[in-house]
Amino acid sequence: MEAIGAIARVMEELGKLPGIGPKSAERITHFLLSTDAKDVLALSDALKDIVQKVHPCRQCCNLTEGELCVICMDVKRDPSIICVVEQPRDVMSLERASAYKGLYHVLQGRLAPLDGIGPEHLTIDKLLHRVSQGGVKEIIMATNPTLEGDGTALYVSNLLAGAGVKITRLARGLPSGSVLEFANTQMLADALEGRRAF
Amino acid sequence: MEAIGAIARVMEELGKLPGIGPKSAERITHFLLSTDAKDVLALSDALKDIVQKVHPCRQCCNLTEGELCVICMDVKRDPSIICVVEQPRDVMSLERASAYKGLYHVLQGRLAPLDGIGPEHLTIDKLLHRVSQGGVKEIIMATNPTLEGDGTALYVSNLLAGAGVKITRLARGLPSGSVLEFANTQMLADALEGRRAF
Repeated sequence: MEAIGAIARVMEELGKLPGIGPKSAERITHFLLSTDAKDVLALSDALKDIVQKVHPCRQCCNLTEGELCVICMDVKRDPSIICVVEQPRDVMSLERASAYKGLYHVLQGRLAPLDGIGPEHLTIDKLLHRVSQGGVKEIIMATNPTLEGDGTALYVSNLLAGAGVKITRLARGLPSGSVLEFANTQMLADALEGRRAF
Repeated sequence: MEAIGAIARVMEELGKLPGIGPKSAERITHFLLSTDAKDVLALSDALKDIVQKVHPCRQCCNLTEGELCVICMDVKRDPSIICVVEQPRDVMSLERASAYKGLYHVLQGRLAPLDGIGPEHLTIDKLLHRVSQGGVKEIIMATNPTLEGDGTALYVSNLLAGAGVKITRLARGLPSGSVLEFANTQMLADALEGRRAF
């Protein structure tokens, strides 16, 4: 059978998503064809909404539907600490840990000279402007512990050096729940260097 | 962070799909947030289309966007043979094998008395009507080789007994590419019973 237009199109579009191959796309499509039309339309509308309603927060560049994100608007959070991350998904991960009560700044990427991503592609200017407004005491660099993430953190911290704020970065060491046997050399070196009194 | 409305909704709706857990839903959502808006809208529209445009073919109950499906409309196919299947996905599987050139009839399910699914829930009446119009020489029962599929095939073939058409069913035996070692007793019994001259 020549596949029917609309059905083939759903399969094709689903197949573009990460982790969904042709078989999964077909399985999901048949599920959608047999499930309640209400649910399919709900998914369709939700997809349209994230394109049309979601945009970066005016202050921290995290994703939001309003002008400011829920974190920037939360008066119970400490505006004197800013945690700098690469992506909105990093904000979600940190929030899930419930261990941080300050604000964020989303860089919207990391410096990657080989991919042609320079400082002008990130929201570094916006961060410097936020700090220059005063009231910020500490900047926590929470970029990924990778070569590019570290490079980005170093670049940003150099720009902030004269701003009179404390600059820190996330601790490195052994991941909780892991075993020494499987730790790589860098993890062990970090863990030794950052050891603390017991 | 309290998850944002639209983003949380996409994650929730994606999480309802088969084979997509919360982690995959989150990963796909972040992919959608970072990909081209055009692609997300294409998926959204395609989903809406399968709900609004796709419906059963007037003749065979396969899924189509027109009045008749592409198979029923294909003049090169043999209208004297009808292959009876449970679901539209079975039509797709058989078509992929490119081994059949007749028409289909989709029952839209199988008899399952324990689930309260009786003959009135299937398109059996429509099949009997098609056969009564004349021109049909053979009906191939291609329901699933399960207890319920076999029961459905038996029920339908009894109803067709007086219609003067040849009724056949798909062959059973060893799946090509498998090994005898892993074949179950029913597969081996079918293979022996249906053995053919070499």
